[in-house]
Amino acid sequence: MHKLVLMRHGESQWNLENRFTGWTDVDLTETGRMQAQKAGELLKAEGFEFDLAFSSVLKRAIRTLWIALDAMDAMYTPVGLSWRLNERHYGALQGLNKSETAAKYGDEQVLVWRRAYAIAPNPLELDDPRHPRFDKRYAKIPADQLPATECLKDTVDRVVPFWNESIAPALKAGRKVLVAAHGNSLRALIKHLDGISDDEIVGVNIPTGQPLVYELDDELRPIRNYYLGDAAEIEAAMAAVAAQGKAKKG
Amino acid sequence: MHKLVLMRHGESQWNLENRFTGWTDVDLTETGRMQAQKAGELLKAEGFEFDLAFSSVLKRAIRTLWIALDAMDAMYTPVGLSWRLNERHYGALQGLNKSETAAKYGDEQVLVWRRAYAIAPNPLELDDPRHPRFDKRYAKIPADQLPATECLKDTVDRVVPFWNESIAPALKAGRKVLVAAHGNSLRALIKHLDGISDDEIVGVNIPTGQPLVYELDDELRPIRNYYLGDAAEIEAAMAAVAAQGKAKKG
Repeated sequence: MHKLVLMRHGESQWNLENRFTGWTDVDLTETGRMQAQKAGELLKAEGFEFDLAFSSVLKRAIRTLWIALDAMDAMYTPVGLSWRLNERHYGALQGLNKSETAAKYGDEQVLVWRRAYAIAPNPLELDDPRHPRFDKRYAKIPADQLPATECLKDTVDRVVPFWNESIAPALKAGRKVLVAAHGNSLRALIKHLDGISDDEIVGVNIPTGQPLVYELDDELRPIRNYYLGDAAEIEAAMAAVAAQGKAKKG
Repeated sequence: MHKLVLMRHGESQWNLENRFTGWTDVDLTETGRMQAQKAGELLKAEGFEFDLAFSSVLKRAIRTLWIALDAMDAMYTPVGLSWRLNERHYGALQGLNKSETAAKYGDEQVLVWRRAYAIAPNPLELDDPRHPRFDKRYAKIPADQLPATECLKDTVDRVVPFWNESIAPALKAGRKVLVAAHGNSLRALIKHLDGISDDEIVGVNIPTGQPLVYELDDELRPIRNYYLGDAAEIEAAMAAVAAQGKAKKG
């Protein structure tokens, strides 16, 4: 049996400010750091050990991983980083407040942008300073692969090759793997692992900072999956994620 | 021209307590963390950027690297970890207080253990719980390569293959490389790079937390090297390292 643990980063500064983040490299809040600490302590208490960890190249995921590995007293765990685990690119919405955007365009339009499987927000202009081509961490990615916006389908299309080329081979080689990433890159992984339909995946909410354990058979098909930790907390965390992006009342 | 920066971890808990550390996985003190922070800020202020970083599998070096990369806003830098960059293994001396050991065996014997190139302290017994074979991070290292004590020569013998197989190829491929490691594993690297003799290397003191920059030609021969930062601070740091392990006066 193969073991894989997925961990969505804790609260970031822009989660707190309710802004569309995407590839913007915002940091964790103190709450986000505490969530990562707690996740690491939980993994340690439950006896989890990892041979390998993966993260995106965004600091909120990397810091989540670092804090968790530190809490597990396993800072020596090899870490592989890839832009393919980045959050979904939110195009021209990046930086905008979710509630203000909802008030301006309507809840429905924002819900389409956030939850329609194959509809992406407007892309960043090529000369927009927010365009990833100006960020040196993406310098080696071919221009035609570098997104200026993404729908969830696009995210799935660039996450799955990383699963196939890096994560799956490590699991098949008998390694226990931890992945720290983002709401939508983890959705992409879960969609692929569990064979969830395009329609259903957009309704799947992954709570922040709660380790999600997958037990997989030899073909890496899920035998079962479960969240570590307190059930009521996990439910509250899922509901909080689902409620984001609605216009503020009053 | 190739660029390599070496960084010795800052003060650890056992530096502070003046104990022989070796492979014991002690953490940085608050001072050690501040030194790492300062080193990272200095590297950033001087415009250094890295394509790749290496560290040992000991947390005082990894944390130094993490803090420095964070201060440089470059947490996305790929990091390679290897036991070959670990501190010199101090055998049965690990855990003993340096001053007490000096008082018991004499300054001269301690100086031999600390500074003779080819004389190692007594090894850890095979069933000593401090033996690295009980530590899972070393589980994949062949038993005949896993040290139970080392003289500096032994450290050189296991660091140089890592230089040849990992660091040098990265530099030759045009990557800018940062190495966070330990007093003796860095001595081993410097000995190899600068062609320092067995007798002379034992007198070379590398200050903690001060980035040491090497500029190398196409054959990776040093063109020049220099410490970043304030000259007086560096000199004081070197003197402090040299003074360790003498019996306390009075």
